[in-house]
Amino acid sequence: MAALEITASELARRLGGVLEGDPARRVSDVDTLEQAGPQTVSWVAGPEVLPRLANSRAGIVLVPLDCAVPAGLTVIRVPDPALSICEVLRWLGPAPEQVPPGVHPTAVVAPDAAVEGACIGPLVTVGPRSVIGPGTQLHAGTRIGADVRIGRDCVLWPNVVVRERVRIGDRVIIHPNATIGADGFGYLFRDGRHVKIPQVGTVVIEDDVEIGANTCVDRARSGVTRIGRGTKIDNLVQIGHNVTIGEDCVVVAQCGISGSTSLGHHVVLAGQVGIIDHLRIGDGVQVAAKSGVARDIPDGAVFRGIPATDNREYVRQQVCVRRLPKMVEQLRELVRRVERLESAANHNRTGS
Amino acid sequence: MAALEITASELARRLGGVLEGDPARRVSDVDTLEQAGPQTVSWVAGPEVLPRLANSRAGIVLVPLDCAVPAGLTVIRVPDPALSICEVLRWLGPAPEQVPPGVHPTAVVAPDAAVEGACIGPLVTVGPRSVIGPGTQLHAGTRIGADVRIGRDCVLWPNVVVRERVRIGDRVIIHPNATIGADGFGYLFRDGRHVKIPQVGTVVIEDDVEIGANTCVDRARSGVTRIGRGTKIDNLVQIGHNVTIGEDCVVVAQCGISGSTSLGHHVVLAGQVGIIDHLRIGDGVQVAAKSGVARDIPDGAVFRGIPATDNREYVRQQVCVRRLPKMVEQLRELVRRVERLESAANHNRTGS
Amino acid sequence: MAALEITASELARRLGGVLEGDPARRVSDVDTLEQAGPQTVSWVAGPEVLPRLANSRAGIVLVPLDCAVPAGLTVIRVPDPALSICEVLRWLGPAPEQVPPGVHPTAVVAPDAAVEGACIGPLVTVGPRSVIGPGTQLHAGTRIGADVRIGRDCVLWPNVVVRERVRIGDRVIIHPNATIGADGFGYLFRDGRHVKIPQVGTVVIEDDVEIGANTCVDRARSGVTRIGRGTKIDNLVQIGHNVTIGEDCVVVAQCGISGSTSLGHHVVLAGQVGIIDHLRIGDGVQVAAKSGVARDIPDGAVFRGIPATDNREYVRQQVCVRRLPKMVEQLRELVRRVERLESAANHNRTGS
Repeated sequence: MAALEITASELARRLGGVLEGDPARRVSDVDTLEQAGPQTVSWVAGPEVLPRLANSRAGIVLVPLDCAVPAGLTVIRVPDPALSICEVLRWLGPAPEQVPPGVHPTAVVAPDAAVEGACIGPLVTVGPRSVIGPGTQLHAGTRIGADVRIGRDCVLWPNVVVRERVRIGDRVIIHPNATIGADGFGYLFRDGRHVKIPQVGTVVIEDDVEIGANTCVDRARSGVTRIGRGTKIDNLVQIGHNVTIGEDCVVVAQCGISGSTSLGHHVVLAGQVGIIDHLRIGDGVQVAAKSGVARDIPDGAVFRGIPATDNREYVRQQVCVRRLPKMVEQLRELVRRVERLESAANHNRTGS
Repeated sequence: MAALEITASELARRLGGVLEGDPARRVSDVDTLEQAGPQTVSWVAGPEVLPRLANSRAGIVLVPLDCAVPAGLTVIRVPDPALSICEVLRWLGPAPEQVPPGVHPTAVVAPDAAVEGACIGPLVTVGPRSVIGPGTQLHAGTRIGADVRIGRDCVLWPNVVVRERVRIGDRVIIHPNATIGADGFGYLFRDGRHVKIPQVGTVVIEDDVEIGANTCVDRARSGVTRIGRGTKIDNLVQIGHNVTIGEDCVVVAQCGISGSTSLGHHVVLAGQVGIIDHLRIGDGVQVAAKSGVARDIPDGAVFRGIPATDNREYVRQQVCVRRLPKMVEQLRELVRRVERLESAANHNRTGS
Repeated sequence: MAALEITASELARRLGGVLEGDPARRVSDVDTLEQAGPQTVSWVAGPEVLPRLANSRAGIVLVPLDCAVPAGLTVIRVPDPALSICEVLRWLGPAPEQVPPGVHPTAVVAPDAAVEGACIGPLVTVGPRSVIGPGTQLHAGTRIGADVRIGRDCVLWPNVVVRERVRIGDRVIIHPNATIGADGFGYLFRDGRHVKIPQVGTVVIEDDVEIGANTCVDRARSGVTRIGRGTKIDNLVQIGHNVTIGEDCVVVAQCGISGSTSLGHHVVLAGQVGIIDHLRIGDGVQVAAKSGVARDIPDGAVFRGIPATDNREYVRQQVCVRRLPKMVEQLRELVRRVERLESAANHNRTGS
């Protein structure tokens, strides 16, 4: 699909790598060793993949600095092939669709919004007094409310909704149909009815955050719901009002984090995890898929289960649960043996 | 952020409360006791918060009628401070963004739709014969199908989709990217393939309902899927076809309710609960987070677990599961003791 | 609601069925036996429903070929009443809303897109070089990126987002707010930060697939994420990058399938199931609601639980878990009996 071609020597130069083989070899796409053809750049992430190198038809392979390679291959030695191939993908791969700079004539941008240098696609709306930074792309149908600030070089994919007063940093990516800044879910129960608590806070999304498709980040009741720098959130995730997520966290698809809970830095939540409200999840915590967290978790802990507990404890319990049918059998057998002993003892006593 | 200011005497008058302290004191925002400054109104919801009152810098505090307060504070006594602060938030907090009355020139409203008095935002679509009540706001990009009826004073946030023939009452709030009236999920399995069952029913959403962002309420196969008056539904919830939800229920984020199940009134489902199809969940039932409900639940019961069971039963089982590793140990020890008894008995018998 | 009427003789003719009763009887709607009135067609799916036939007020009832029916009823005998009633629903039921052929003047269609014969609704966007097949309906606010191909007779409901280069077959239905082709969730962890891996692959959706509201199908890192012919996916489902789903599968609401996992043909995932990455789920597998799958599943197996295991094994374990409180009791009792035996043995030894 890509029309670009690049030579091995040019690729080595751009990557700062060491070329071995044919400097004139041309490649135009990127794929795995198995899928690669003579026009393909591939890569060896680690020594475990080396055996597959011999059978690959790849035109060029990025390899670690010190690994042995079969003769005849054109390779480029780099310190971190997995990282370098990402750069190659950005050069050769089909680029993501771009919104051209300027304001599309069908967009509805408030006269007092500031959008200089931004890329505003068709049928986008930008509310009063909002500021969209230079290089930021708003794809078709994106809705930006009033008094929003979005930094530079962000990408908001189609039909994203950002409600009023939300603050978004630089280089943030938000995928289609995500909702940022909807009301938190808060009510007072009075006389058998639920009275809505006004949700007057907002959301702050720091630099380099990525937010998945159809994910929801609720605005705070008051104050802010905060997503820390570099944190990556997958699709269909629910972030409740007044949640604080630290830096460089990973939240996998369909997780839910309830109101006022805080996550430290470098936390990893696997898919479909739920966390109740007002908890404190420490730095570096990892929670296994499908877990339900109902208490604070200290720094560095690995938790699992419903309710989630320390992973070692969980494993011990699970081993026992699997053994349960056998235990029931053992217990029954033991009852029989004790009965036999008792009847013998009884017999002895009465018989003697 | 708010430009409004209000004096203590004016605030007391509006709330119908009793002022103690400086009637001229001016405030312009609302926050918790901890975050409050001299321009802030705060509140004491109950006696447990009273100790934090002494250290607060709040300009004015709403307190219960009969509590003792430190000298020097300006307080307003009201019967229900948590409820009163909601009113103050509506006066002083930054108001939610409003769609102005009338039809935005970029909206596409069918000529035979009735939208008098409604507030139709930019790039909204309203289908043939639909009726939008006075005071109802349709934010940017909202899609209303044909023959829809929406009552008065509703708010539909950006990019909400309401499909044809859906009925929505008064004062309903629907958050961004929610989908109301998509086809129910129903097929006949014939000759190894799934044949779609036409979903010709609709959805009825009664007065004062709130529906969260990216939530889906499917239309009925025939008849209606109904959300009862005053029920509040959080984000990313799935409501299947022909479900009936009673009045004043609370359904927390990421719950799923399968086809034809009915919930009574005042039911509370915590986050990520799933309920299978064709069940009857009674009035006042509470289901704990992450539970999977696979049978009817009687009025007033509290259920938990997968499959969900009565909470007391669940707790008993969980205590045992946690004790399992110890039980395995006990059982092993008991086997040894019985073996010893048996060998002694054996020895006695053969030895004597 | 439907204005159409049809006579019993015409209905029998169209269905290829055998009429018994009044050929001139007219009906105009479809409903269950219980809800039916004299203007209603109803149906008897199987013998278990026959007793309810006597009390039904239905004007016409579709019945199996060989069942006995009460005298006086007008019935049409067909081989598969449940299937035939679907056809009747398509004739008599209120039809789903249609987008008229042609391009609505407010749609933004790239000049080099090919949309001949397609039905493009208001405020839709279609990107450069995309091809929309004849008879395909794009409802209001749908976003089609660049280089997309969509076949014929598809229906994309409002605000669906399809990103660049996605391929969609014929007769595919995609419900509102679904997201097709957003970036997969992939990062390299380097120096404490997450580096985005470019997601240069795409999505292929084969013929006759149906995709639910607010569901996400991520594009592949490279290569394709594939949804096989005839597969039906419910609302709020997450399909990760490079997932392959076979033909005629059913994926119920709120399931999540992680990256690179493959499903065979005729797989059924009940609601809220999660499957981790890189697994192989065989043909005909069924997974119970709320299960968490963490290992490959062979063809035809029925799995359940977290982690999911063979259903028979799961049931055995669950029976034991429910019996646990009793087991604890039994164990305690047994300890007492062994103690008694030991003390007796001890007494015998020391006493004699």
